[in-house]
Amino acid sequence: MTHTMPEKKNLIVDMQPVGRRVDISEGSTLLEAAQSAGVGLVSLCGGEGWCESCLVRIAKGEINEPTQPELDYLDEGDLSAGYRLACQVKPKTDVRIDIPPESLSTPQRLQIEGKDFEIPLAPIVEYVDLELSPPTIKSLRADSDRVKDALLESGFRNIRIELPVLMNISNVLRANKWSIRAVLRQGEVIALLPKGMGIFGISVDIGTTKLALYLVDLSTGEVVDKVGEMNPQIAYGEDVVSRIAYVTQNDDGRETLQNALISSLNLLVQEVCGTAAIDQSQIVDAVVVGNTAMHHLFAGLPVEQLAFAPYVPAVNEPIDFRAADIGIEMAPGAYIHLLPNIAGYVGADHAAVILSTELWKTGKTILAIDVGTNTEISLVSNGSLLSCSCASGPAFEGAHITNGMRAAPGAIERVQIIDGEIKTFTIDDALPVGICGSGILDVVAEMKAANLMDEKGALIEGKLNIRKGKKKNLEFLLVPREFTGHERDISVSRTDVNEIQLAKAAIRAGQEILLAKAGIAAEDIDEIIIAGAFGTYIDVPNAISVGMFPGIPVQSFRQVGNAAGMGAVQALISLKHRQLIEDVIKDVDYIELTTYEHFQKEFIDAMYLR
Amino acid sequence: MTHTMPEKKNLIVDMQPVGRRVDISEGSTLLEAAQSAGVGLVSLCGGEGWCESCLVRIAKGEINEPTQPELDYLDEGDLSAGYRLACQVKPKTDVRIDIPPESLSTPQRLQIEGKDFEIPLAPIVEYVDLELSPPTIKSLRADSDRVKDALLESGFRNIRIELPVLMNISNVLRANKWSIRAVLRQGEVIALLPKGMGIFGISVDIGTTKLALYLVDLSTGEVVDKVGEMNPQIAYGEDVVSRIAYVTQNDDGRETLQNALISSLNLLVQEVCGTAAIDQSQIVDAVVVGNTAMHHLFAGLPVEQLAFAPYVPAVNEPIDFRAADIGIEMAPGAYIHLLPNIAGYVGADHAAVILSTELWKTGKTILAIDVGTNTEISLVSNGSLLSCSCASGPAFEGAHITNGMRAAPGAIERVQIIDGEIKTFTIDDALPVGICGSGILDVVAEMKAANLMDEKGALIEGKLNIRKGKKKNLEFLLVPREFTGHERDISVSRTDVNEIQLAKAAIRAGQEILLAKAGIAAEDIDEIIIAGAFGTYIDVPNAISVGMFPGIPVQSFRQVGNAAGMGAVQALISLKHRQLIEDVIKDVDYIELTTYEHFQKEFIDAMYLR
Repeated sequence: MTHTMPEKKNLIVDMQPVGRRVDISEGSTLLEAAQSAGVGLVSLCGGEGWCESCLVRIAKGEINEPTQPELDYLDEGDLSAGYRLACQVKPKTDVRIDIPPESLSTPQRLQIEGKDFEIPLAPIVEYVDLELSPPTIKSLRADSDRVKDALLESGFRNIRIELPVLMNISNVLRANKWSIRAVLRQGEVIALLPKGMGIFGISVDIGTTKLALYLVDLSTGEVVDKVGEMNPQIAYGEDVVSRIAYVTQNDDGRETLQNALISSLNLLVQEVCGTAAIDQSQIVDAVVVGNTAMHHLFAGLPVEQLAFAPYVPAVNEPIDFRAADIGIEMAPGAYIHLLPNIAGYVGADHAAVILSTELWKTGKTILAIDVGTNTEISLVSNGSLLSCSCASGPAFEGAHITNGMRAAPGAIERVQIIDGEIKTFTIDDALPVGICGSGILDVVAEMKAANLMDEKGALIEGKLNIRKGKKKNLEFLLVPREFTGHERDISVSRTDVNEIQLAKAAIRAGQEILLAKAGIAAEDIDEIIIAGAFGTYIDVPNAISVGMFPGIPVQSFRQVGNAAGMGAVQALISLKHRQLIEDVIKDVDYIELTTYEHFQKEFIDAMYLR
Repeated sequence: MTHTMPEKKNLIVDMQPVGRRVDISEGSTLLEAAQSAGVGLVSLCGGEGWCESCLVRIAKGEINEPTQPELDYLDEGDLSAGYRLACQVKPKTDVRIDIPPESLSTPQRLQIEGKDFEIPLAPIVEYVDLELSPPTIKSLRADSDRVKDALLESGFRNIRIELPVLMNISNVLRANKWSIRAVLRQGEVIALLPKGMGIFGISVDIGTTKLALYLVDLSTGEVVDKVGEMNPQIAYGEDVVSRIAYVTQNDDGRETLQNALISSLNLLVQEVCGTAAIDQSQIVDAVVVGNTAMHHLFAGLPVEQLAFAPYVPAVNEPIDFRAADIGIEMAPGAYIHLLPNIAGYVGADHAAVILSTELWKTGKTILAIDVGTNTEISLVSNGSLLSCSCASGPAFEGAHITNGMRAAPGAIERVQIIDGEIKTFTIDDALPVGICGSGILDVVAEMKAANLMDEKGALIEGKLNIRKGKKKNLEFLLVPREFTGHERDISVSRTDVNEIQLAKAAIRAGQEILLAKAGIAAEDIDEIIIAGAFGTYIDVPNAISVGMFPGIPVQSFRQVGNAAGMGAVQALISLKHRQLIEDVIKDVDYIELTTYEHFQKEFIDAMYLR
């Protein structure tokens, strides 16, 4: 007789009410199960247990005992009712779980999670409670002098009170019987609140497609809520270039796009305030990131020049202005801080990625890639930081693809071709209606693995599900109409494959040029960090297979979610981190790919599917 | 034969097209002639020849040769066409002059002149012309960095460019082919203009009744234009107290009053820009003064607490904010500076009076009195400065007087009763329709001199034109209906006389209490400065006669016109003067009359007409 090691069991997780089942191996968490099934379970902290957002109810099956984070967050009643945090739960048997609506991301799946971090709480704002004596005929000081004198007594210096706070000072002091909380920002009193009232900040990541907003308690540093929404500017153009064109072609274009964005952000602010039961006047600081065009459109800066070589921003350095200047509804005197841009197409969002991934601190060789319509790439090696931007196009957003669509319910987000059997997985398990970015990447990788096309992307007649489509061009039938939600075939054309080739080639060429510039080979890379929404959902082996990334070991990849949003949160809770990234950005060596002599060659090389 | 000294001739000045004739003695100027005739000839500099606003054409008669100021300002063509400055011309014979419309103040006569001053030009703003190199593929700096680097090269330090200027930076740089004028305010770039373009500032005096706006060339310090207008807030209340009541009683009251004011000021800005053929973007700085309530309503500050004891302002210290924050149309990044207030009813306008009259510098004993609905009084003696405020009421504005009216055409502004003959003089020589402030003061003084009433103000039956009016009360018929513009009698009742008694008593009591507080007798006063619109038009001997001022020699009085406006101009062209008045104000000892034990006694004493 010989001993055999106990094999890891395969377990089934049945998720309700989304109606999705997934196989996991023992030791996996419910969060991982949800992620592998494409169920949009909100997880801000990336599974560390502190964001408390992935709450689920265990309906059936055996699981581990509650962990410390769960004991910290859930009370006895919650636990006895079966509530647990999905990231902390490892099933021991097949399980069925109920996912409450608030734990699911919005129907349009948005990426607002990110890896966690621990940095000391030291925001730009400070606060102090004051007991003032009211004016009398013997004490005729103006209201502002009364506040300033009390702050001086509390040890504050160089105190300023400016118009937005002066506008309400008399009423606030009297309504609160001279008992107030003063919030200061580098000597300026930016808010006067009732004594003891909580203070909060928001961090915002403005993507071309999606907005993410985090509410942070500035007395604890805790992220208390996060919400997402589509960028309403989509109505004026799907990508950055078409939005700049809209601004160029319409007299009030800049204002229109800015107003659309501000309105949506104000709704998100209202939403988090409602959930947290706080007033907007308690939001006393904000940090905003976005690509350079979004950054400029948010602040109302000119973008026309971003459409023409040499694509220079109006401003790169970090800027601060009052929220009221652009109509964001916060405390009357509150400011907004925008992280620095690096170049016309490497914006503050990438600066935030660099900040939250601590790229500059490492002694390793790391590529950080934020995949989007525009893909920003940074390479850190030997203590130097190179950045570039590639026009990867909207194919990964589902655009310019025959049956492409955004990551919404019914989108095919995962595809497998195994032994001639085609399996598709859709968001929310809905009947398939189209293919989103991660799905189209999977299709191309799987078609290649199944030898349905050559290395140029030409489909091969006679192979599995390859047929003549419109205009007699070959196409790959992915889902026949009878299995779809709209009763039309879902297929993939050679043009679709070429769109993906163009996109992945641009991204790969950018990586190769940074590596060449630094004199480094792909094998020398210690880590590839993939940030951003799309980057979170892609199948890394498939991405390697199509040549989007160099073929280094899969375990060297790190999918960090919304690292830009996390960077914005860090800059909100730590003034030092604002200064840190400002300094780091000054040393970034920006490579303008269009002027790089080898770019064309690298790009064409990267087109092949080998 | 004996020699006789040549007697001063009486000469006649015939003013057209206003159709007014006036007798002057030889040696008087045309400006003095116009003033004595109540013709609203604009004279900002008070007759020193540098404001160039009192331009007239000599149609007939002999006059002096052109003076140096005239030679500096008028060219050969002007002079040969007969154009001269009224303040510089002393007729040798009877003359006829044409007054061009632009030299006439608006139909509603407004006080926007003031005594001149000479202070070095050193405004808060500086400017420099820059030639930038445009961005190229080898030079990818952001637009703002390009400007900052050029400024660094020009020796500027701690340069900041903020949102309002960033919002247009890319367009401005390109439209001007990278050749620009940068305007800076303490390191902040507040405007980017085409290279070489002139820069201007505005000073504004916001009276409860009237607005005065001065346009100043900030490259020379010269006042290039001045305009006046009624304060549109009059529609919401004639005096400060009723406007505060409006704000208290209406949810959007504060905003309504602020918007009305801002709209009127923007029209004045447009007017001076049109006249000077400049763009509003060339106006890069502003200084604003007003009484505390006007100051607060202009800036959008709370005023409700000003209506209740102890009447404390929201803010006393000088404040600065962007013009754009309240909607004043100037350069996008321009700031507005508000001089400090002293107390709830001694505002920034009085601070400006103290500044322009240099009260604190003198070794003399001086009373400075700014007569209005609210009258502010300062006494400087032995190096200390006392200030107070008296509720003198609107009688001197023509309100609460049976036939009272504002200083508009047809208002009786001067009255003489000589040997039983009643003579009245109206503004613009129009048919009389009512009595304005200086007229009603004259009436009371002349009635008293003609013994038509007793020292309590009771009219004496049987005396000149004293008759029974409505409800059988005695009244003095000033102008019978057949000589008026509206065919109704213009008369003065005992109630009218009492209104003037109340007003002058309040003003006199304020003076007496300041004198008592300083331990000074009226005889010790070296000078009484009368500032403000009404103060310019009153007849000083008559004002002494009714007891409004102590009976010190007439030559000790100085009528300085709009000293508040002049203080605002000084603070505009000299940063040092802003700091100066801020420091001076800190040492002002404010006396709250309502808490002063002798106030009632002084007030009742001052009611008598002795």
